[in-house]
Amino acid sequence: MKPVYFENGALKLIDQTLLPTEEVIRSYTDYREVAEAIKTMVVRGAPAIGVTAAYAVYLAAEEFKTLPTDAFMLHMKDACEHIKSVRPTAVNLAWAVERMVVLFKNPVGRNPKTAVAALKAEADAICEEDIAMCRAIGEHGQKLINRGDTILTHCNAGALATADYGTALGVIRAAYDAGKNIKVYADETRPLLQGARLTAYELAKDGIPVTLITDNMAGWMMKQGKIKCIVVGADRITRNGDVANKIGTYALSVLAQAHRIPFYVAAPTSTIDFGMLSGDDIVIEQRDPDEIKYIKGQQIAPDGINFENPAFDVTPHQNVTAIITEQGVVSPPYYRTIPRLTIKDR
Amino acid sequence: MKPVYFENGALKLIDQTLLPTEEVIRSYTDYREVAEAIKTMVVRGAPAIGVTAAYAVYLAAEEFKTLPTDAFMLHMKDACEHIKSVRPTAVNLAWAVERMVVLFKNPVGRNPKTAVAALKAEADAICEEDIAMCRAIGEHGQKLINRGDTILTHCNAGALATADYGTALGVIRAAYDAGKNIKVYADETRPLLQGARLTAYELAKDGIPVTLITDNMAGWMMKQGKIKCIVVGADRITRNGDVANKIGTYALSVLAQAHRIPFYVAAPTSTIDFGMLSGDDIVIEQRDPDEIKYIKGQQIAPDGINFENPAFDVTPHQNVTAIITEQGVVSPPYYRTIPRLTIKDR
Repeated sequence: MKPVYFENGALKLIDQTLLPTEEVIRSYTDYREVAEAIKTMVVRGAPAIGVTAAYAVYLAAEEFKTLPTDAFMLHMKDACEHIKSVRPTAVNLAWAVERMVVLFKNPVGRNPKTAVAALKAEADAICEEDIAMCRAIGEHGQKLINRGDTILTHCNAGALATADYGTALGVIRAAYDAGKNIKVYADETRPLLQGARLTAYELAKDGIPVTLITDNMAGWMMKQGKIKCIVVGADRITRNGDVANKIGTYALSVLAQAHRIPFYVAAPTSTIDFGMLSGDDIVIEQRDPDEIKYIKGQQIAPDGINFENPAFDVTPHQNVTAIITEQGVVSPPYYRTIPRLTIKDR
Repeated sequence: MKPVYFENGALKLIDQTLLPTEEVIRSYTDYREVAEAIKTMVVRGAPAIGVTAAYAVYLAAEEFKTLPTDAFMLHMKDACEHIKSVRPTAVNLAWAVERMVVLFKNPVGRNPKTAVAALKAEADAICEEDIAMCRAIGEHGQKLINRGDTILTHCNAGALATADYGTALGVIRAAYDAGKNIKVYADETRPLLQGARLTAYELAKDGIPVTLITDNMAGWMMKQGKIKCIVVGADRITRNGDVANKIGTYALSVLAQAHRIPFYVAAPTSTIDFGMLSGDDIVIEQRDPDEIKYIKGQQIAPDGINFENPAFDVTPHQNVTAIITEQGVVSPPYYRTIPRLTIKDR
């Protein structure tokens, strides 16, 4: 399931705002409309946003390729700034755009007509590398899964959040493909319901048995012995192994400890912030209270009250059994094992 | 805030299915319509259902009081059976109806014209006793609350679940009225959102500061030191102190243990099942998956997946710091302290 791909001269996006009740593929040839699609979360998930942004830069080059070189460079610069601005906090967005910018800024790329081909190839490469990374995470991670396991996951760290296959769901897919006869519990993940809308949807599409529960049921399922391990994604991992991820992840890690259930984090090494020493330094984004107050436009809470809506929380490294990366499985003590990973250009 | 009261010859119910966006008081003089209101959850919460059912029996007596005694008795028997049948699992419903039946079955009550007055008085008594019980729970419980505490609660164990004042929210109201300058976090409580729709609503009405969070945020708030104690209601308490309550309560109790936060249960002694030795014997009701799949009629999850929807979970007595009853605060070891409570006729 590819949430973003290029076909017949156009960028295609699954409209994730309409899932799971409507499956609409949108088609884009104007980079401005792609930027708007990122902003309005037609596409979401840091890796998927990166791939989408790369193709947006390529579409801009197609539009401006008949201009003289100086005008081309000027228009491309504006286009790239615009694309980067739509979701300033998503690190993969800026990273992918910068990787494209390098190409048309070097001497060879300054010829607009040759630049476009190079930019298309680079966007394709970013897309393919992301899929390869997810496949490698899946292959390393599935070795941690036992035959017949029931696995709990939270939010959507799936194909829909990447170019394909997913990180946490990559591990689940690889275990399923290895014939391990697994089952999945998916937390619905309020407020934005990524578990209900996206994880349940993509696992069902793949024929992987999935049971949806509300977030407050996970602890009770653990108590009853119904969950054998937990696999989640990550938005940022610090050098000591602390993990920022979707709100609710921290509570799951505490419940996992109390029930002696392994708690795994699946993420590419590009998610590791080698320059940040601990999760105490991560700033948690507070989002719009209306995400809680309204569900699909229906008001579910009264006026005149307060809300807190942190988008993420931080799971301390003590609660993380292992971190599954494309380079292999990283185990505690993280302050030793994380710095041993190969640091690539992001 | 009284969800059920009798005024000008009619039973009045706040329509809780419309809260918090619409405040509609419905008026009933036909016991059949009252039974339907219980069934469709216009009124909910075991104590509130009991009070409503008592008035429904009285309304039946008003309707049949001009009949000969034998016909009166026959019609009353049918009416009572019908009222009891609409929600067979709510123990207070049967209890309240039985308490009314005693009156018109004894020799004095067999005169229809004198029976109606006695039935009205008994329904009023059931209502007033419930309020007094909640007030006593509040008064005992507020002594456990410190000045400036922020209290987490789950679901709605409030005025809207009783005749007035509430059990868990009774403790919160009493602490607030004692000038303790408290604040409240309310879990929204998926799937039926009683925390968002009812608890936030009634606390806001009383001017008690309330912050609504999604269920998966509670652990993170505890980690940050924002929650000083937890107070919840109960649907059934066994002789050893195990507590059945709304799904999600168990996970909160584990998180409370991990963060060394007191975890209090507020409930009348009528909630204690003295004949059941432990929570292992409590059967957990599984409810309709559509409660998860749809929110206010909007589909939020795909077709073709599985759901689990347990309405309750069981918190082991080891995780319960104290049980707050109208007879006083009961502390561990519960296998000793619970049997010392005065057992009244239910």
